[in-house]
Amino acid sequence: MLLNYQRKLITQLSIKKYRIQNRLFVAEGKKVVNELINSDWPFEILLSSEENFHPKAELLNLEEMERITHFKNPSPVLGVFVLPESQKIIAETTTIAVDNISDPGNLGTIIRLCDWFGLSELICSKTTVDCYNPKVIQASMGSIARVRCHYIKDLGASLTALKKPVYGATTQGDSIYKAKLPKEASYVFGSESHGISESLLSHLTGQLSIPQFREGGNSAESLNVANASAIFLSELFRSS
Amino acid sequence: MLLNYQRKLITQLSIKKYRIQNRLFVAEGKKVVNELINSDWPFEILLSSEENFHPKAELLNLEEMERITHFKNPSPVLGVFVLPESQKIIAETTTIAVDNISDPGNLGTIIRLCDWFGLSELICSKTTVDCYNPKVIQASMGSIARVRCHYIKDLGASLTALKKPVYGATTQGDSIYKAKLPKEASYVFGSESHGISESLLSHLTGQLSIPQFREGGNSAESLNVANASAIFLSELFRSS
Repeated sequence: MLLNYQRKLITQLSIKKYRIQNRLFVAEGKKVVNELINSDWPFEILLSSEENFHPKAELLNLEEMERITHFKNPSPVLGVFVLPESQKIIAETTTIAVDNISDPGNLGTIIRLCDWFGLSELICSKTTVDCYNPKVIQASMGSIARVRCHYIKDLGASLTALKKPVYGATTQGDSIYKAKLPKEASYVFGSESHGISESLLSHLTGQLSIPQFREGGNSAESLNVANASAIFLSELFRSS
Repeated sequence: MLLNYQRKLITQLSIKKYRIQNRLFVAEGKKVVNELINSDWPFEILLSSEENFHPKAELLNLEEMERITHFKNPSPVLGVFVLPESQKIIAETTTIAVDNISDPGNLGTIIRLCDWFGLSELICSKTTVDCYNPKVIQASMGSIARVRCHYIKDLGASLTALKKPVYGATTQGDSIYKAKLPKEASYVFGSESHGISESLLSHLTGQLSIPQFREGGNSAESLNVANASAIFLSELFRSS
């Protein structure tokens, strides 16, 4: 049986304010919860509608899971995990940064992409959706366990302080297929609708873009930001 | 004023059965609706909460838009468009096919990617989410006006009939960075959770994969299918 205060807590954790107040966040789905547990991420509550999921998991029926899920459909597993303390940027050779990303699915898949390409941190502007939002956690498919998101107030100054070139993905930049993409550099991706913010543009060493391949007439104005990041990361690491 | 039968119709069009019965689908959002109108896509109803959107648009207040939207938040523009007749596959040099994609956002962004890379058709298995689903339309960001989706019962046989090699994106295939990727070929992407279906695997000329870059220990098991398609398309066209 889930206690009333627990049910209330889990529901509240869909909101950032309560995640910060309680220093907790919710992860749903077997894969994500398993990845967090396997990486020794501390948890407070573990619930499952399936027996034998984990020795510490409390058994709940699906109806109860339906009452607490942050999604349309409940998953058989839900965990309440401890929000980590903020850490210093370790400054890997290649740094990926996002500016003002608002869609949780986009941020989650960018975290997953960073993981795939072997990166362990992602720099986010303070205006970017919170990485402990349940939808980000779900879209990251467990990669949140390996990619630390740092939220930074002044993205431009922080990236400049890393003392390596800062490239921005824009629609007017040099073709990524022709420009030299140094491994030791930062690459910034801007918001879905407005691109990289004005104040950040002045901090860029250069602008890069994925060329359009449709000839003549109308065509797509832009790519989805997660897809654009995927292409940039592939182009950066393909010759490793 | 929206008439009752129109309101009912628009609401029903969130369901595929009613889209087929009425030969109509709904598009929401200024950009998507504009792109469809600019490509001379025939429409039945055009609604806007903003004056001067289009001479044929009926003015509706936001509350009324809220009652008919297929999304959480209404957009200022909604159009009811005519479902096109099915057409023959034109068989471009490069063919992209999707097998069993269930997430509307993924299908929509794959349509947008095809548009970006200059392709005009996408072959979908019958088990793939309907491209006239409102969420697919939205995620395609208007690219549905330039990329025709063909729904095929036997994807394997149809791709084989195109008489060019058929490559599948799998987790065990040859690295796309090392293999030769012929322009004249079909490339198939499988479902988010199960990959390419068993019956289709036997029709493949070869399997290709995006190598993992994280060394040692745990890492992401797979990439989001739209991100994987983005990387494949970039790799295919980068040397054009």
